[in-house]
Amino acid sequence: MTTDFSGWRAELQSAMESVLDRHLPPVSQPPGKLHQAMRYAVLGGGKRVRALLVFAAGELFCAPRDALERAAAAVEMIHAYSLVHDDMPCMDDDDLRRGKPTVHRQFDEATALLVGDALQSQAFDVLAGGELAADRKLDMAVLLARASGSSGMCGGQAIDLDSVGMALSLSELEQMHRLKTGALLRASVLLGGFAARALRPDEEEALHAYAQAIGLAFQVVDDILDVTADSATLGKTAGKDAANDKPTYVSILGLDASLALAEKLRQDAHQALQPFADGARRLRELADLVVQRKA
Amino acid sequence: MTTDFSGWRAELQSAMESVLDRHLPPVSQPPGKLHQAMRYAVLGGGKRVRALLVFAAGELFCAPRDALERAAAAVEMIHAYSLVHDDMPCMDDDDLRRGKPTVHRQFDEATALLVGDALQSQAFDVLAGGELAADRKLDMAVLLARASGSSGMCGGQAIDLDSVGMALSLSELEQMHRLKTGALLRASVLLGGFAARALRPDEEEALHAYAQAIGLAFQVVDDILDVTADSATLGKTAGKDAANDKPTYVSILGLDASLALAEKLRQDAHQALQPFADGARRLRELADLVVQRKA
Repeated sequence: MTTDFSGWRAELQSAMESVLDRHLPPVSQPPGKLHQAMRYAVLGGGKRVRALLVFAAGELFCAPRDALERAAAAVEMIHAYSLVHDDMPCMDDDDLRRGKPTVHRQFDEATALLVGDALQSQAFDVLAGGELAADRKLDMAVLLARASGSSGMCGGQAIDLDSVGMALSLSELEQMHRLKTGALLRASVLLGGFAARALRPDEEEALHAYAQAIGLAFQVVDDILDVTADSATLGKTAGKDAANDKPTYVSILGLDASLALAEKLRQDAHQALQPFADGARRLRELADLVVQRKA
Repeated sequence: MTTDFSGWRAELQSAMESVLDRHLPPVSQPPGKLHQAMRYAVLGGGKRVRALLVFAAGELFCAPRDALERAAAAVEMIHAYSLVHDDMPCMDDDDLRRGKPTVHRQFDEATALLVGDALQSQAFDVLAGGELAADRKLDMAVLLARASGSSGMCGGQAIDLDSVGMALSLSELEQMHRLKTGALLRASVLLGGFAARALRPDEEEALHAYAQAIGLAFQVVDDILDVTADSATLGKTAGKDAANDKPTYVSILGLDASLALAEKLRQDAHQALQPFADGARRLRELADLVVQRKA
């Protein structure tokens, strides 16, 4: 039986809540306050786009469910840790995330620092567990480490820091986002494949092109929503980029050209999936979701 | 040919500098400032106790050199990241580390945050690379992840945070240090063994008992040096714990009993190594070093 996209998505988003719950240390285990704060940072919200990408690619390659759950939990933990650190006063200094006070506001700064650090370790611990063959898990761990570190997400954040108040060119802005959000989105797609088997170069290239397109689309849409949506809808502070004088697609291209670019990237993503025919249905639907989302 | 301990130690400390250099991203690769700050945090100093433990245990089990170098680099990166985050204003707020300005003083807080985050990813990347069999590398990655996360180092730091100004019992203090510094020291010893082969339970238990003893000894001696040495010798601010009203072995037991405890733990460490006879010579010498060091 084939479920429609919104059913598939709702089922997985709800399943991820219990998958994450199972793979996070319990509050009953000391240090209880740290574990409580880790759970606060990860559970109860988020669109789980990265987890959905893991499952969609995993479905395409018929990867085992437990391995996909672990990979999805690991990328969501890495994503959550990056948000916790990103929200801290020395970075974006934000009070609101997923509609709740940020971790350093709810607890304190030192706890937020440790929550992020411990979530990163937890992600690798979860990914390295389970029944999959050692070489599969190792490939996945290397992929996640590279996507997270200085040649991926952290590197993008460093470039972002240095770009505040600067006039970035479109290609510099693209390069920054390719690392800052693109690397982890790309890893999510590939993790779904790696959980099944080592991929052929042409398969990896097609997934890479797809991930590249939705990664940029994701950011273009984020920039559009930052000026068109309100904080209540976003669950985070709207208008923040403009207020901080951060270069965005909208500030460089304008709103109309940004909307057109997002649509072009959606089509690029579909194009990249052609070799996979029907198997890639969920990945196509996710590309549409990334571009058409309202928050 | 057998080198004496100080020759062995000096050779490895110097080798580690180039091993770490090789396993850190070059400054020429963007983002250059982040890579420069990562190198600043890791290179050019430190006693490299954790790396020495990896090599000493690796020697005992005849592990391949490249695998030991990677494991040693990985634990030193984890240790360095923990120092960078620990020194930040929201934690210990320290200005001096290894005789140099701390990372957030030399660069800025946001960079220090990212340096720590990226070093943790880098550690897993380095550990998962190289020629070792996938199951060996995976065991090592799980060990390092657990030792670093909320059930290890980060957990110990969380307990430490909550203990400021509190009257801890000796056993609570021990539990805190068992996680905060003990977990990574233990991982260092086991990584040296895991790089050779899966260990038998009795071997793992003996190494565990050894690591437990030197882990506590390390902290007892740290507390002793905090009141008996000066900042120039330590390369970090002396007298800090007393000033911050942190519970220490010296504050609970007094100086003489702390000195006696350190000596007893040194003997416990030797005792634990008895099953290994001569092969464990370097591990014995390291136990002596941990207790007899002056900084």
